[in-house]
Amino acid sequence: MALRTGDHGQAATNGLKEKVLTLDTMNPCVRKVEYAVRGPIVLRALELEQELRQGVKKPFTEVIRANIGDAQAMGQTPITFLRQVLALCVHPDLLNSPDFPDDAKRRAERILQACGGHSLGAYSISSGTQLIREDVARYIERRDGGIPADPNNIFLSTGASDAIVTLLKLLVAGEGRTRTGVLIPIPQYPLYSAALAELSAVQVDYYLDEERAWALDVAELRRALLQARDHCRPRALCIINPGNPTGQVQTRECIEAVIRFAFEEGLFLLADEVYQDNVYAEGSQFHSFKKVLTEMGPPYAARQELASFHSVSKGYMGECGFRGGYVELVNMDAAVQQQMQKLRSVRLCPPTPGQVLLDVAVSPPAPSDPSFAQFQAEKRAVLAELAAKAKLTEQVFNETPGIRCNPVQGAMYSFPRVQLPPRAVQRAQELGLAPDMFFCLRLLEETGICVVPGSGFGQREGTYHFRMTILPPMEKLRPLLETLSQFHAKFTREYS
Amino acid sequence: MALRTGDHGQAATNGLKEKVLTLDTMNPCVRKVEYAVRGPIVLRALELEQELRQGVKKPFTEVIRANIGDAQAMGQTPITFLRQVLALCVHPDLLNSPDFPDDAKRRAERILQACGGHSLGAYSISSGTQLIREDVARYIERRDGGIPADPNNIFLSTGASDAIVTLLKLLVAGEGRTRTGVLIPIPQYPLYSAALAELSAVQVDYYLDEERAWALDVAELRRALLQARDHCRPRALCIINPGNPTGQVQTRECIEAVIRFAFEEGLFLLADEVYQDNVYAEGSQFHSFKKVLTEMGPPYAARQELASFHSVSKGYMGECGFRGGYVELVNMDAAVQQQMQKLRSVRLCPPTPGQVLLDVAVSPPAPSDPSFAQFQAEKRAVLAELAAKAKLTEQVFNETPGIRCNPVQGAMYSFPRVQLPPRAVQRAQELGLAPDMFFCLRLLEETGICVVPGSGFGQREGTYHFRMTILPPMEKLRPLLETLSQFHAKFTREYS
Repeated sequence: MALRTGDHGQAATNGLKEKVLTLDTMNPCVRKVEYAVRGPIVLRALELEQELRQGVKKPFTEVIRANIGDAQAMGQTPITFLRQVLALCVHPDLLNSPDFPDDAKRRAERILQACGGHSLGAYSISSGTQLIREDVARYIERRDGGIPADPNNIFLSTGASDAIVTLLKLLVAGEGRTRTGVLIPIPQYPLYSAALAELSAVQVDYYLDEERAWALDVAELRRALLQARDHCRPRALCIINPGNPTGQVQTRECIEAVIRFAFEEGLFLLADEVYQDNVYAEGSQFHSFKKVLTEMGPPYAARQELASFHSVSKGYMGECGFRGGYVELVNMDAAVQQQMQKLRSVRLCPPTPGQVLLDVAVSPPAPSDPSFAQFQAEKRAVLAELAAKAKLTEQVFNETPGIRCNPVQGAMYSFPRVQLPPRAVQRAQELGLAPDMFFCLRLLEETGICVVPGSGFGQREGTYHFRMTILPPMEKLRPLLETLSQFHAKFTREYS
Repeated sequence: MALRTGDHGQAATNGLKEKVLTLDTMNPCVRKVEYAVRGPIVLRALELEQELRQGVKKPFTEVIRANIGDAQAMGQTPITFLRQVLALCVHPDLLNSPDFPDDAKRRAERILQACGGHSLGAYSISSGTQLIREDVARYIERRDGGIPADPNNIFLSTGASDAIVTLLKLLVAGEGRTRTGVLIPIPQYPLYSAALAELSAVQVDYYLDEERAWALDVAELRRALLQARDHCRPRALCIINPGNPTGQVQTRECIEAVIRFAFEEGLFLLADEVYQDNVYAEGSQFHSFKKVLTEMGPPYAARQELASFHSVSKGYMGECGFRGGYVELVNMDAAVQQQMQKLRSVRLCPPTPGQVLLDVAVSPPAPSDPSFAQFQAEKRAVLAELAAKAKLTEQVFNETPGIRCNPVQGAMYSFPRVQLPPRAVQRAQELGLAPDMFFCLRLLEETGICVVPGSGFGQREGTYHFRMTILPPMEKLRPLLETLSQFHAKFTREYS
């Protein structure tokens, strides 16, 4: 090879060849991405688990991963009917087995009929199996009291995250002061900040009101929007309802005010409604943005753009690993929707098993079906236990001096505020850590409890929180909460 | 709401509110994305299918979708053992069933032990279940004659596409003349052009040599690289071997030359090896880039950066819908690999059913296992039939005047060159269509055969091709090939 050009070639001949891909040369947007839910604290938790397996002595016998909303990892049993239908679809020889109820078989046959070559191993169309999108549309209609839903506006996805990122991707444009800004709640689920960093869009923070149970206040939305317009072009508003990590459930009045605001300010609404089945508090009720928007009538109903996301990972299903979800688009420009279809087609299709589970979740057994009673009993048991755990969590935290926890009205997390003594804050700063990260790391090292510091979700300056799932089984949750309370007391004494 | 700012707010008060998201305001990079494999011709095929169902008379009774490598949609039967293990994992009650062989049960139990809460419904760690990555590493070691593979360098993915896009995303940086350029073969699989458009990276075309059975020529790589350096910074080289859509299988000598070239020119190698099990031609053999690189010794072995991709969608498995795959990283900078881990964690985890199928595919039954004989027989039958279909396709096309087809040495496609009469080319231009798109659309309308025009993959100016899968069952493939030949003759007469 006689002729070489470029620095790399030259370096090679000198034996000094550097890597092509280094921290300095890689995508700078990717470097900015952070995702606390699986961040450094979770990596440390994994190490601790390995050390325990290797017999290293610790002040605890088990790491409890309360960092992530992963119900089945915490021992929640899958809903039998979901798994029966999926097993039949995966291995249709079982359609002849006497061990499966007839309605599960009928359901599996119906889904397989809709698959290419009658097999889950075929790609579906990119927006998801037509039949399943029709079932999703009917689910939405039932949920929303008969307001029509069009299967052509429904795109199945690889979990809700996949669909959320697709929508954000479509929305990002411009440079410098015309760059797309996206309003997100603080505290937020860090998928939003991560995706915006990766897409080099501008994150516009609006703060939820901790003093009013994490309520969303339109005056604060307006403050955030007006400030943001100085340096970017805000074009979308993200709402998480029920809230993650905050657990609040929005009132209908609040949703109406948000819709009016979005309409008047020209913002595309992204409604993350993956916890729509997870509402526990008395007096709280889930209202979908689609329903409220439609019932508000003109000019909102026919014009306000909205994307609503749902998933099989949460609810009573907890089928995180299967990565099933969908987005419903409302009032999206038809040409843009075609562009979205094209973009999705590059990734071929969402995983078919997740599509199957979604189908069963959106069209559960009817009262006349043999599986009805068991399905309902299992679903109710999961939701009742979650409600009890939500209540217990709030109660124990609020009995602890220095910890204050808003009601966990919905979703799967508590996000209590913790007082940290000034000397602990100072010590954290010396270590180059956020104060709540310091607290959570110490908690993990001393008790094996893995929770995520509030700084990973965002919080008002000078306040400290952590996110803890309410998912551990009752017999573990109670001692866990007590251990946590005692640790906070000890930590406070140590640094006072 | 008294005070409003911004154009949108103003427009709203005038009753002229426009959509936030339109073709003009959406992400311009997404607009540039094209993906022919599921492009306009496939949308038309879907319409035709619907018309047939509605009883509309057509000159054919069935649309044959030979546009996409989707084996099971074409009737290929899933490998029994893969589905047995997955069904057991999905619905562990079946572990007590007498209808499943012991080795399938042992396998399922082993996988479930490695899952959070012993359930597929839990998230796995973001890089994929540790046990499965270990099994993948052992597979690679066997494949490569004992060269070590490290599970920590293996990331499971949602099909190979997901991992390919992740690697490209890491590589993209710079602006204007320093923007990352990526060399891709022409013809290419359009995931590459689509991802590069979306990421706003520079696509650098190198042409495969149709006259030499689509061989890759290093002189052409060098030409492409030198030209590209005028306007971008080429940093990666993509190879598809066995080739898609071209079906060639690279020789060891060719791979060595490519590795030397990449090393000397400072290019990160991306080896798309998803068809590694699909090699049919006598004298052809799959050589992995990893193996060749390692056996070349210093300075290449310890330094050349490489990512190799594989999938459960192709091979003898054909499990496209489950979206399982992996990438093995070789010589990647450790800090960048951590960044990749972080980036992957935002999407939580690859779907667990795809991980299970991958696990079985990389660790098939051993000779002493009860399922060994059946597994081997099924695998051999699939691959033997694909080999026969590859041969038949090549043969029939080459007997057709005006069509010339290189040997289908591997993969799942033929990419024949078609002569189109000048008047057909002219007619296409009048219609604003690429000439081969015009040909393929007419073919679809008149015969129901759906193939993808060569312009969707790239081809030398003035040449015309189409990509057709070799997947239709033998009893359909032969008449399909004959219909296609006859149509070409008729089309040629019509426009002569």
